Amino acid sequence: MTYKAGIVGGAGFAGIELARILLQHPGFDLCAVTSDALAGIPLSKAYPAFSGHADLVFQRNDEADMSSLDVAFLAVPHTAALKHAPSLLESGVTVVDLSADFRLKDAAVYESYYDAAHTQPELLASAAFGLPELFPQPLEDAACAVRQGSPALVACAGCYPTATSLAAAPAVRAGLVRDGATVVVDAVSGVTGAGKKATERTHFCFANDNLEAYGVTTHRHTPEIEQILGLPGRIVFTPHLAPLNRGLLSTVTIPLGEGCGLASTADFVDLYEGFYDGCAFVDVMPEGSFPKTSSVVGTNHAHVGAAFDARTNSLVAVGAIDNLCKGAAGQAVQCANIVFGLPEAAGLASVGLPV
Amino acid sequence: MTYKAGIVGGAGFAGIELARILLQHPGFDLCAVTSDALAGIPLSKAYPAFSGHADLVFQRNDEADMSSLDVAFLAVPHTAALKHAPSLLESGVTVVDLSADFRLKDAAVYESYYDAAHTQPELLASAAFGLPELFPQPLEDAACAVRQGSPALVACAGCYPTATSLAAAPAVRAGLVRDGATVVVDAVSGVTGAGKKATERTHFCFANDNLEAYGVTTHRHTPEIEQILGLPGRIVFTPHLAPLNRGLLSTVTIPLGEGCGLASTADFVDLYEGFYDGCAFVDVMPEGSFPKTSSVVGTNHAHVGAAFDARTNSLVAVGAIDNLCKGAAGQAVQCANIVFGLPEAAGLASVGLPV
Amino acid sequence: MTYKAGIVGGAGFAGIELARILLQHPGFDLCAVTSDALAGIPLSKAYPAFSGHADLVFQRNDEADMSSLDVAFLAVPHTAALKHAPSLLESGVTVVDLSADFRLKDAAVYESYYDAAHTQPELLASAAFGLPELFPQPLEDAACAVRQGSPALVACAGCYPTATSLAAAPAVRAGLVRDGATVVVDAVSGVTGAGKKATERTHFCFANDNLEAYGVTTHRHTPEIEQILGLPGRIVFTPHLAPLNRGLLSTVTIPLGEGCGLASTADFVDLYEGFYDGCAFVDVMPEGSFPKTSSVVGTNHAHVGAAFDARTNSLVAVGAIDNLCKGAAGQAVQCANIVFGLPEAAGLASVGLPV
Amino acid sequence: MTYKAGIVGGAGFAGIELARILLQHPGFDLCAVTSDALAGIPLSKAYPAFSGHADLVFQRNDEADMSSLDVAFLAVPHTAALKHAPSLLESGVTVVDLSADFRLKDAAVYESYYDAAHTQPELLASAAFGLPELFPQPLEDAACAVRQGSPALVACAGCYPTATSLAAAPAVRAGLVRDGATVVVDAVSGVTGAGKKATERTHFCFANDNLEAYGVTTHRHTPEIEQILGLPGRIVFTPHLAPLNRGLLSTVTIPLGEGCGLASTADFVDLYEGFYDGCAFVDVMPEGSFPKTSSVVGTNHAHVGAAFDARTNSLVAVGAIDNLCKGAAGQAVQCANIVFGLPEAAGLASVGLPV
Repeated sequence: MTYKAGIVGGAGFAGIELARILLQHPGFDLCAVTSDALAGIPLSKAYPAFSGHADLVFQRNDEADMSSLDVAFLAVPHTAALKHAPSLLESGVTVVDLSADFRLKDAAVYESYYDAAHTQPELLASAAFGLPELFPQPLEDAACAVRQGSPALVACAGCYPTATSLAAAPAVRAGLVRDGATVVVDAVSGVTGAGKKATERTHFCFANDNLEAYGVTTHRHTPEIEQILGLPGRIVFTPHLAPLNRGLLSTVTIPLGEGCGLASTADFVDLYEGFYDGCAFVDVMPEGSFPKTSSVVGTNHAHVGAAFDARTNSLVAVGAIDNLCKGAAGQAVQCANIVFGLPEAAGLASVGLPV
Repeated sequence: MTYKAGIVGGAGFAGIELARILLQHPGFDLCAVTSDALAGIPLSKAYPAFSGHADLVFQRNDEADMSSLDVAFLAVPHTAALKHAPSLLESGVTVVDLSADFRLKDAAVYESYYDAAHTQPELLASAAFGLPELFPQPLEDAACAVRQGSPALVACAGCYPTATSLAAAPAVRAGLVRDGATVVVDAVSGVTGAGKKATERTHFCFANDNLEAYGVTTHRHTPEIEQILGLPGRIVFTPHLAPLNRGLLSTVTIPLGEGCGLASTADFVDLYEGFYDGCAFVDVMPEGSFPKTSSVVGTNHAHVGAAFDARTNSLVAVGAIDNLCKGAAGQAVQCANIVFGLPEAAGLASVGLPV
Repeated sequence: MTYKAGIVGGAGFAGIELARILLQHPGFDLCAVTSDALAGIPLSKAYPAFSGHADLVFQRNDEADMSSLDVAFLAVPHTAALKHAPSLLESGVTVVDLSADFRLKDAAVYESYYDAAHTQPELLASAAFGLPELFPQPLEDAACAVRQGSPALVACAGCYPTATSLAAAPAVRAGLVRDGATVVVDAVSGVTGAGKKATERTHFCFANDNLEAYGVTTHRHTPEIEQILGLPGRIVFTPHLAPLNRGLLSTVTIPLGEGCGLASTADFVDLYEGFYDGCAFVDVMPEGSFPKTSSVVGTNHAHVGAAFDARTNSLVAVGAIDNLCKGAAGQAVQCANIVFGLPEAAGLASVGLPV
Repeated sequence: MTYKAGIVGGAGFAGIELARILLQHPGFDLCAVTSDALAGIPLSKAYPAFSGHADLVFQRNDEADMSSLDVAFLAVPHTAALKHAPSLLESGVTVVDLSADFRLKDAAVYESYYDAAHTQPELLASAAFGLPELFPQPLEDAACAVRQGSPALVACAGCYPTATSLAAAPAVRAGLVRDGATVVVDAVSGVTGAGKKATERTHFCFANDNLEAYGVTTHRHTPEIEQILGLPGRIVFTPHLAPLNRGLLSTVTIPLGEGCGLASTADFVDLYEGFYDGCAFVDVMPEGSFPKTSSVVGTNHAHVGAAFDARTNSLVAVGAIDNLCKGAAGQAVQCANIVFGLPEAAGLASVGLPV
């Protein structure tokens, strides 16, 4: 048996990555992909990688009948999910939202960072946060609801928050962060993270051969990282852009408390390995090794590494993901797998390109 | 039931791509991967994309017992396959060779281009050339032999010859090439085509931001292209290097005979679509569209496009492949699928990354 | 003494490269740079590489007083130069046009390829073609006119025609091309060649990790190459795009006539060295070496190499340039130097980055 | 009048960049470039960007007569400068060292980080640290010595320390760093920073499409940054590699003391502009803008930007340089200009490529 799935906003980079995964998924049947901009165009024309694989054609949002689906994935800009989610849920369709609209539990924080009214604050409490390794319970609760016939709402974590939190969580949850200290997150993303829109920033000739910081002190993922890690007002997050398509590396520098009890990199690698024991998608690098984004591109894996700096009593933790996969579409499917009672890795088990 | 497979020379780029494919293949069980250079090292350490996927460890060539396998893939430099193939075949192991050692039917041509003696000329006649879309019969014959308990030897086509021949064959086999005229092949490859060895040519800082021709008038794939297309002494082949990892684009300019009967690009697209009808791995681009290497990376697909130039009565045909996949490891597995009676696309059906 | 110079259309890639060169030029004083899109914005804000170097601000085209200049460089799209050139010339301003509007001597060919009326056909005869190494006389004539107080019109060669013709000309002008045979030109350009406009084609994520052909059989530079080489209807030209900013490599395959008298690569290298003797900006690679685009980026140099293919009696000639410099802005300044009686290499002598 | 200059170790990336600059320098005459590996080979053969510009040939170190030069630039690995410097100084040759050998004032720190004995500790006190914007006096003292006929020794700052310190110094020197707090430096470099040696790390196919951290908690530039900023034991420095040739971006997160008096980004931009007033090579980005490495490639400029984070009372400062130029060869020439009484920007004034 398979579940009927649709993608709202399928023309963008996260949406089309969803299409790639769902087309090969044993448990979901991809029935509809919407895009007002590309309506009427076959997926394989817009993205020739689909040649020979799919006869799907982009549909207008208002023409696609989503109400009969089991699950709708929303790969839309923020505020658009606020519009789509309620009616889908009312129709009994489970919503897996890749936008930021239901991630932040505090609507006021959303309104401050996203400069938009949050029109569905009542949905925030029930939205299951989609980062399975760190928040399994809300997804289990959503799975329970679905089993009982109620649709669920999943708010998938953002790309930077995913890589950052997976790198930091073992230390943070062990209570090792120095009291009151600021945690510094410097992260670098490939250009797919800037979206499909053709702009000066995404022009090849400006993005190529270039490194730059952006959104310095103001990036919208800051409060999301703080919410996930439970460190309000204590994250300084600086994102950067580098010349590659996919891949996101987050380097997290954590001041440690006195007497945290861990005194070597080996101790921290042990902590990390224990923390992620049983997690199919998080691989802890051995002592002395650090993640490479090229090793996770095209996969739902996160690679995590850590080193202890005795000189400053700090931990440097690094996380690598494919921003479109574990940072967006892959994680959304992982969440949907859990919510629909499928194997967590269903449709997500492929090995990445070695080079 | 699965067949036992091994890879000789698994540390290089074609070898490790074979490992990626075979690890996920429903019909082959990857039992051994050899590399003298990396012996004792887990695949997942040398290539972290395998983390969490494989417990395989590189073995020394003389320590791996290949004789009990059903099939051995040789991902070795030329002349090395001459050494490995005979004993494997004697042990009853089918050999799928990715090197150049058994491709050229004329040992003298091999010796001239590869500057080495061909020590196994008696195997040349029986070696099945591995380019299934253009030479199905030898592979069917090999399959027949294997069904009857005899091992087969497959000599997989090279990367440039594959892309070039798939682009040119429909026109060439239709007899459209102008009598005696020279066919010009200009092809561009990503840097994986230059191999894993760290050299000045493969140094990032010399290969990046650079385009160059190499092997001008002397490249070893020239006689192979001529043999495949049946155009001895009539190919001018110039390969180039461009700054990307995977991907190979071959542009073939074919002078057409008078009165060839095809008078528009649409006619040629029809010819091409008919020619490749039923070929799962070759997609003919619609009129006005041309292949992009990014659309085939990580897949066994070839994208082919063609345009008629009335001004000069020429055809320009373009083929795009992933040089490591359809140009090497993927094609090898496709051939092995045929030879072992598996579905031709087994283990090769994944959709490429859309971006 | 310096000449007063202006740039019309300075915001695009060729225009801003002109600004870079002219700002450092000992013989020209850059007085005005126009751009309707960026009017009022300092060059150093739009292109931070100018920080600390220039106080120039983009002006609206209709606000800049160009009539008092000595020379105006037109870095505008085709058809726009048809509008700007006549009034500038009437004001006595020498025009160095980087667009295609005055390159083709036959207005009908222009109208056919550029799909636009040629409104100034009477200027075509007097326009000096700007490719100094191959057409010195028209530029000398223009210099003579300027010395005598009349403005000149220079129509600079395009990027693909420049690289292609410099690679092919020594053999073509020596009469070595086989009678009636077609010459095949396959060229690869960096993405600056596709212009500054943000489109899907120029989006980093589509251009990166990709090779593709475009404009197959229809590219507008085809008749320009044929005009330069004197080979009407005999060029098949296929341009390609590769993932780098600057750099253009053209590979030209020339069928040779019987008894051409040159029988080795060394003979052709001699021919080429003799042909370009005294040309400051063309370097002939020694036998066995071929041009790399990275070696000419940021400079006005062309590197040219050639190899004789005895098997097919063909010559493979390769030319590398920086498409924005020798292929556009640098060549324009080289022409202006000649026309104004300055040293040909004035302002163009810098050494390129070695890596 | 010009000074006679030589380069010891000219084949590597910093050395050849020195050659590029010195060949075009009005005040230095490049007389010798040594390289044991490339001895006898013309610079223009090893690096074709020099074609037509230089007749220089690499010489063996023991064959080049350096003793008659005015200045020798040492572009050698660490420990090699310890061998070369003393005899040159004894011969009266001023030494500008690009290696790490004379940067750290404490020989014990050198020995600990570089795992080598410091054989010339007596030279450390007199070595002028080469980072002119932050340490003008030692270079002035060296200039005074040279004017009086004594050779000087300059120890040029490293690439990461230069970008990092230029970004951090205005805040640090104003005493704004929170007492005892750790400063986090996350920096990203292009691959030229990893050197010319062909290794797996510098192989195109491993470096391309990849981001990774390296030298985590152990990088040798850590004590140098601490020495420059006067913050011993308070820097956590994590370098990263990104897929571009040149360019280095350092992001520095500085916890601010209470009541530091600066309360907005505008305040900090004012501070920075004042601090760098009169510095030809440091450009402070306006509020809201941040440096791009592409804007400084090929130039000796550093671009610096800063943003105040009120939430955490931190400053995020970002510095961009060309690691081979302001981070190595350009800075060395800037220092030599000062020491020999030439204009500080002599030979270093070229405008970078805008795109």
